[in-house]
Amino acid sequence: MSDIYLDNNATTKVDPLVVDAMLPFFTEQFGNPSSIHKFADGVAKALKKARQQVQELIGAEHDSEIIFTSCGTESDSTAILSAIKAQPNRKEIITTTVEHPAILSLCEYLEKEGYTIHRLPVDRCGRLNLDAYQKMLSDQVAIVSVMWANNETGTIFPVVEMAEMAHAAGVMFHTDAVQAVGKIPMMLQDTKIDMLSISGHKLHAPKGIGVLYLRRGTRFRPLLRGGHQERGRRAGTENSASIVGLGKACELALEYMEYENTQVKAMRDRLERGIVEQIPHCFITGDLNNRLPNTTDIAFEYIEGEAINAEFTDWSGASPC
Amino acid sequence: MSDIYLDNNATTKVDPLVVDAMLPFFTEQFGNPSSIHKFADGVAKALKKARQQVQELIGAEHDSEIIFTSCGTESDSTAILSAIKAQPNRKEIITTTVEHPAILSLCEYLEKEGYTIHRLPVDRCGRLNLDAYQKMLSDQVAIVSVMWANNETGTIFPVVEMAEMAHAAGVMFHTDAVQAVGKIPMMLQDTKIDMLSISGHKLHAPKGIGVLYLRRGTRFRPLLRGGHQERGRRAGTENSASIVGLGKACELALEYMEYENTQVKAMRDRLERGIVEQIPHCFITGDLNNRLPNTTDIAFEYIEGEAINAEFTDWSGASPC
Repeated sequence: MSDIYLDNNATTKVDPLVVDAMLPFFTEQFGNPSSIHKFADGVAKALKKARQQVQELIGAEHDSEIIFTSCGTESDSTAILSAIKAQPNRKEIITTTVEHPAILSLCEYLEKEGYTIHRLPVDRCGRLNLDAYQKMLSDQVAIVSVMWANNETGTIFPVVEMAEMAHAAGVMFHTDAVQAVGKIPMMLQDTKIDMLSISGHKLHAPKGIGVLYLRRGTRFRPLLRGGHQERGRRAGTENSASIVGLGKACELALEYMEYENTQVKAMRDRLERGIVEQIPHCFITGDLNNRLPNTTDIAFEYIEGEAINAEFTDWSGASPC
Repeated sequence: MSDIYLDNNATTKVDPLVVDAMLPFFTEQFGNPSSIHKFADGVAKALKKARQQVQELIGAEHDSEIIFTSCGTESDSTAILSAIKAQPNRKEIITTTVEHPAILSLCEYLEKEGYTIHRLPVDRCGRLNLDAYQKMLSDQVAIVSVMWANNETGTIFPVVEMAEMAHAAGVMFHTDAVQAVGKIPMMLQDTKIDMLSISGHKLHAPKGIGVLYLRRGTRFRPLLRGGHQERGRRAGTENSASIVGLGKACELALEYMEYENTQVKAMRDRLERGIVEQIPHCFITGDLNNRLPNTTDIAFEYIEGEAINAEFTDWSGASPC
C-alpha cells in the first residue's frame, strides 16, 4: 500500500510542468530583468506572461493589478499595513476569529499598538453572521480582512457580498484567498474586492512566491521599499524562476478547475462517507453545503488530533469497529 | 566570439550544483517543514544544514543567528525597521550616500516620517571619513547601516571598525553585505556587527532568497508576523528549495574564496589594464587598494554610461584608438 499525500492545504507538491517552466530561469535566462543588456532579454517578457496567467485565473481586470510577493504572509501583511498607513485616521480593523495566523498575529500586534480589532465569530457550521458584520462597519474602519475559504474546514465565506457591504460603507476590503484560488472560479473584476492574497505553494507552484492582487485605483503604501520593481509597489529583484512557475501553476489550475470540482470533490465525498460510516464518534465540520471541493475536516470525539496523526500508520491493518 | 556575462554584481547565474541540490525539494521532499507527518521528514533537517552552511561562510557563532528572508531588500528593511521599533525613543539613523536603494529609499521614507538621517559622503576614492562618522554617533541614533562593499566600485568599507565605534557609543550596527559575502573572508563572531544582509542571487543561488544575520541577544522586532517559522522572527512557510540552494551556494562560495581572490582578481586586473591602456579618457574609480576582487568600475569621460552599453556590440570590430 503506497502513501497518499492528503495535506494539500498545508502545502502541495510542485507540478513537474511547473519545475520544467522554471528551470531555464536558473542557468540560462538568469539576467536581472532590470538590466539593459541581452542577458536580461526575455526575462521581462516571461514575467509579463506570468502576470497574465495569474490575472486570468482570478479574473482581474488588468495585469498591472498583480504584484508578486514572497508568500501569502507577505501579501497579507502588505495589504493590512498598507490600508492603515494610507488612512492614518482610521483605527479599526474587521476580521474573523478563524483567519490564518498571518492575519491573526498581525491583528494582535496592531491591537497592542492601539488599533481596535473586531473579530467576527463563526457558528457551529463555520458560517459568519452578516448582520453582526454590518454593525461593525463604519468610517473608523481602515480595512476588512476575511479569508475566502477556511484552511481547516474548507468553508467558503461570502467575500463578494461582504466586499460590497464594505464598499457601501466606504471601507476597503481584503481577502486572504490562498486556499480558494485555483479551487473555485473567480472573476475579481466583477467584485468590490480591493486586495487579495495568493500563495504559490498552495497550488503546485514552489514555496517562496505569492501575489497581492491590488485593484487599480486602490490607495497603497508598499511594505518593502528600494528598487522600482513591481511598479514601485514591492522592491527587490524579481524572483523570475518562481514567478514563471507560479504563472504556469495558475494556467494549470484553470485547466483543472472542472476536474477539481467534479472528480476531486467526488473522491473527497467518498473518503468522508467511508470514514463516517465506519468509525464511531466522528463527524464532518464546516458548512457542508458551501465548501472547497478538495477539503475535508473530520472531528473525532474523545481523542486528540495529534494522537490520531501519530497513530495513523497503525490503522492500516485495523478492522472497522 | 562568445558573449561573456560580466554583470555579476546585478545578479549571477545559478550554479548547476545549486539547482541539483534544490530539485528534490520541489517534487519529492515537498512537505511543509511545520507539518508533523512523514512528508515533512527530512525538510527540517535540510534547512538546518543550509543554516549551518550560511553560518560557516560568514563565521557566525551559532546557526540560530541565521534568519532566512525573501531577498536582500527584505533583510535590509527588517533590520532598520526592527531597530527603530525596538528603540522608539531614538530618532536618528546613520548611513552613507552610496548605499543600495533598499537602504536609501527606506531612509528617505523614514525622513518624511520624522527621522533624522545622517548620510556619510565618500571621497574621490570612494572612502568614508571616520572622524565625521564618530561625530554623528550619539544615544539618539537607533542604528548605523553601512554596506560592507559598494556594488558599483567594489570599495570595501571598514565595517568591522565602524561597528566597534557604534558599540562603544551604545549604537546598533547593520551592514548590507550582499556584494561582499562570498567574495571576501568574514568572521562575524569576532566583530560587533549586530545584523547583516545577504542576497542569494548575488552568489549563484536563485533570486527570491536572502538572509538576515542577527547576532544573539540583539533586540529584534519581526517585519512579517504570522506563523512561528524562523523562531518567530520571519513568518511564512519556509522556501525550502531556495534555502537549500542558498546553503549549497554558500558552501561553494567558501570553496572558491581563494580562487576569487587570486585568479578572478588577476583576470579583473588584466581587463582593467587592457581597457585603460587602449582607450583614452577613462579611469578606474573606487579605492584601488581596497576593493572586491571581482569588481571593476571604469569611468569614461565625455560619454553617458548607457550610450556605452547600447553601443557595446559595435565595439567588437573596432581597433584601438
